[in-house]
Amino acid sequence: MSQKYTTRAEDYSKWYNELVNRADLAEHSDVRGCMVIKPYGYAIWEKMKDILDKKFKETGHSNAYFPLFIPKSYLSKEAKHVEGFAKECAVVTHYRLMNDEDGNVVVDPSAKLEEELIVRPTSETIIWNSYKNWIHSYRDLPILINQWANVVRWEMRTRLFLRTAEFLWQEGHTAHATKQEAVEEAEQMLHVYADFAEQYMAMPVVKGVKSPSERFAGAEETYCIEALMQDGKALQAGTSHFLGQNFAKAFDVKFADKEGSLEYVWATSWGVSTRLMGALIMTHSDDEGLVLPPTLAPIQVAIVPIYKGEEQLNAISDRVATLTSELRSKGISVKYDDDDNRRPGWKFAEYETKGVPIRVAIGQRDLDNNKAEVTRRDKKEKKSVDWEGIADYIEQLLEDIQSNLYNKALAYRSEHITEVNSYEEFKDVLSTKGGFISAHWDGTEETEDKIKEETKATIRCIPLDRTEETGECIITGKPSKGRVLFAKAY
Amino acid sequence: MSQKYTTRAEDYSKWYNELVNRADLAEHSDVRGCMVIKPYGYAIWEKMKDILDKKFKETGHSNAYFPLFIPKSYLSKEAKHVEGFAKECAVVTHYRLMNDEDGNVVVDPSAKLEEELIVRPTSETIIWNSYKNWIHSYRDLPILINQWANVVRWEMRTRLFLRTAEFLWQEGHTAHATKQEAVEEAEQMLHVYADFAEQYMAMPVVKGVKSPSERFAGAEETYCIEALMQDGKALQAGTSHFLGQNFAKAFDVKFADKEGSLEYVWATSWGVSTRLMGALIMTHSDDEGLVLPPTLAPIQVAIVPIYKGEEQLNAISDRVATLTSELRSKGISVKYDDDDNRRPGWKFAEYETKGVPIRVAIGQRDLDNNKAEVTRRDKKEKKSVDWEGIADYIEQLLEDIQSNLYNKALAYRSEHITEVNSYEEFKDVLSTKGGFISAHWDGTEETEDKIKEETKATIRCIPLDRTEETGECIITGKPSKGRVLFAKAY
Repeated sequence: MSQKYTTRAEDYSKWYNELVNRADLAEHSDVRGCMVIKPYGYAIWEKMKDILDKKFKETGHSNAYFPLFIPKSYLSKEAKHVEGFAKECAVVTHYRLMNDEDGNVVVDPSAKLEEELIVRPTSETIIWNSYKNWIHSYRDLPILINQWANVVRWEMRTRLFLRTAEFLWQEGHTAHATKQEAVEEAEQMLHVYADFAEQYMAMPVVKGVKSPSERFAGAEETYCIEALMQDGKALQAGTSHFLGQNFAKAFDVKFADKEGSLEYVWATSWGVSTRLMGALIMTHSDDEGLVLPPTLAPIQVAIVPIYKGEEQLNAISDRVATLTSELRSKGISVKYDDDDNRRPGWKFAEYETKGVPIRVAIGQRDLDNNKAEVTRRDKKEKKSVDWEGIADYIEQLLEDIQSNLYNKALAYRSEHITEVNSYEEFKDVLSTKGGFISAHWDGTEETEDKIKEETKATIRCIPLDRTEETGECIITGKPSKGRVLFAKAY
Repeated sequence: MSQKYTTRAEDYSKWYNELVNRADLAEHSDVRGCMVIKPYGYAIWEKMKDILDKKFKETGHSNAYFPLFIPKSYLSKEAKHVEGFAKECAVVTHYRLMNDEDGNVVVDPSAKLEEELIVRPTSETIIWNSYKNWIHSYRDLPILINQWANVVRWEMRTRLFLRTAEFLWQEGHTAHATKQEAVEEAEQMLHVYADFAEQYMAMPVVKGVKSPSERFAGAEETYCIEALMQDGKALQAGTSHFLGQNFAKAFDVKFADKEGSLEYVWATSWGVSTRLMGALIMTHSDDEGLVLPPTLAPIQVAIVPIYKGEEQLNAISDRVATLTSELRSKGISVKYDDDDNRRPGWKFAEYETKGVPIRVAIGQRDLDNNKAEVTRRDKKEKKSVDWEGIADYIEQLLEDIQSNLYNKALAYRSEHITEVNSYEEFKDVLSTKGGFISAHWDGTEETEDKIKEETKATIRCIPLDRTEETGECIITGKPSKGRVLFAKAY
């Protein structure tokens, strides 16, 4: 408890790494770039997964499962896709091991695959290769499928949750008869992601589209939600792609329309990943540890008895039993921690570190006075609360915490969207204040590259709700149709 | 509808393959040995997963996630384990592709891994390598973790769900301070699996232990549940292993007990996979198609209107609306299929093929008479039912179907456990009647091998509840302590 941890102000990056470890969320494995998601971290991810899965089903999608392996040649079928994904990936070349003369386990050279298999970095190619056989007529459309899966992108510099070689995600892959329907699908899923981020993660996001150079490899339009972390860096939290007919053409997927003529199918894909865990952690947590929005907290209320001897403990446990059952009947997850091996102070510190939204302490004096001590994690406020009606109080407090976290993050973000009208100002804001910088851009990749090279900031998105406003590019002075958001990003 | 499909009697194996295809459950992908689980098949798997996951959590387990890749050297650490698993597996040797001089995508020879990575065939080694860092004292025990994951075992002959190179499963991995606790855990999970098989899959199973030669590679005891398919072949539906201290020794995992002395940790692992889908299909389905127990059916009730013109359809739809909402409030999943593009007969045939437990047809005459026609899939019985109270009728019928399926499968299995007292009799029963054969065995691997070689039958298990009964081995005449179950198996 007295151990000193790195604060956000001291070293944000180190604070993050320590926090992921202290809160027992994940750790690096001995396999380069791959993480172990520990039970507490996985429980949070499971909550995210369940909520998102429900939203996908409510919008008409079904889950399915496609192979982990992709034949090398598939990646080459869509020209831009191969450029974007073929480079850093895990390649399976053999399918058997054997013992050598010394008894060591070695790869059997005779078991070489004719065509190498790639561990999926994303599944457009393998899925469109299946859709080819599924789609014949307009009656077969739309296809609205999602899969929960692991994917591998060979990253050289990894950070837990934010960038790992293997990560968990969902990828939606839909097929449509018309361009309009596909665009609407891509936009719908963007809104599903944004609602999830704001309502459950309590994390405000900007909805926008990527500039052409930042699009997904093979997409005609990439929609994204961008969040802002407490260090002023942006984080892309989810993307939804309108793929046009690119994959349909690459895999020759046509359908007969109502008039019987053959047309290429229109496509979307969309995904969020365990990266959301990193976003969640960095949006709310403080120097004491993790802070979780109640809707995603595996334990929402931790109750700790403070007692001397078994008699006191029994009296407290009896009193608490009615509260836990009342809270559970309200759908609130409660842990009553009567573990005799650990002191109350130790328990309190652990639940604080792990971001449990509400801690309740109850001792003999509380029993006598019909009170309990309630501490909210977000504001670290302690209050003595009447036992009568305490379940309702806690229920209300959880809602308050949820909206407080959102409002706090929103206020931070609002303070950190800065309009600038010159490159000098741009560089100044970037190096002092950080956050999103709203500036005019001439629409060229050349200008984007220059800014990126000189400042490391990139265009995070062209906001969907931006004001149409003519202006001059801060670099070239050429005409611009509206401001775009720049930031340094994870 | 008039298409002729292979019957079970004609060719059981072909019947199965056609059925998986007709019911739209899964298909072979173009990637050797890997399957695509289609939405309807995946929806059934999801139901299984949700129920099992709940049972695991109720018995104190948490989910986590460990890496897909295992360093080659890890497999060698447990001597028996490497023999069992190192042979047929997918080996990652490189981490980058590049364009060659002709612009083709090829493996970058400079991106060769120092140590090859194996795509996990099972995760004992990578998990115990983590547990090593997690376990120091008795206070860190037990560890009760499960993971839902994909695994790869390079199979040469594959069949959808039953044997595929990649499959989905769950694997529990627990660590304990005492041998007794670990054995109890392994047995507890066996019972969880058996209860799931019987109560949800409506599939009776024999609980037993494997003979030493059939044990999991690295286990001291392998518990299993064995089911019997309609062709008289057995199917291993789940296993739970008491691993002793083998993996703790291989990865040097010790804990300080209460007295402070260092001891090796005791382990279990247990798993079921998408193979259960194959078992489910083969236990209940008939020549018309899939038959599903109601508890695992994605659609429990399909309602089909029979009408001429919009007016009739509207009247039927109005009436049906009250029924669907009443059924849904009972937790019953209903599909009202008013798709105007398909004829009722076509719809009925589809829901029959897909194993929907109850179909309801309602036309103008039914409206007039306050009736509806209810067909149960299991017995193919049609009945005209009063509209008044029809929701309760359906609810009861679903329960009847569930227990009928179980009882039918149990009756089949009871008829197909045959006690024999000579090898002649054994061979005769095996070739004519099939099923489980209960016979005395001398306990040697030699005898097992002989029987397997000569008849293809193996010891499926030594039943937990077998009668202690001395006898003579049917092959060698040597003394035996009790009967064991033999069968040909999937």
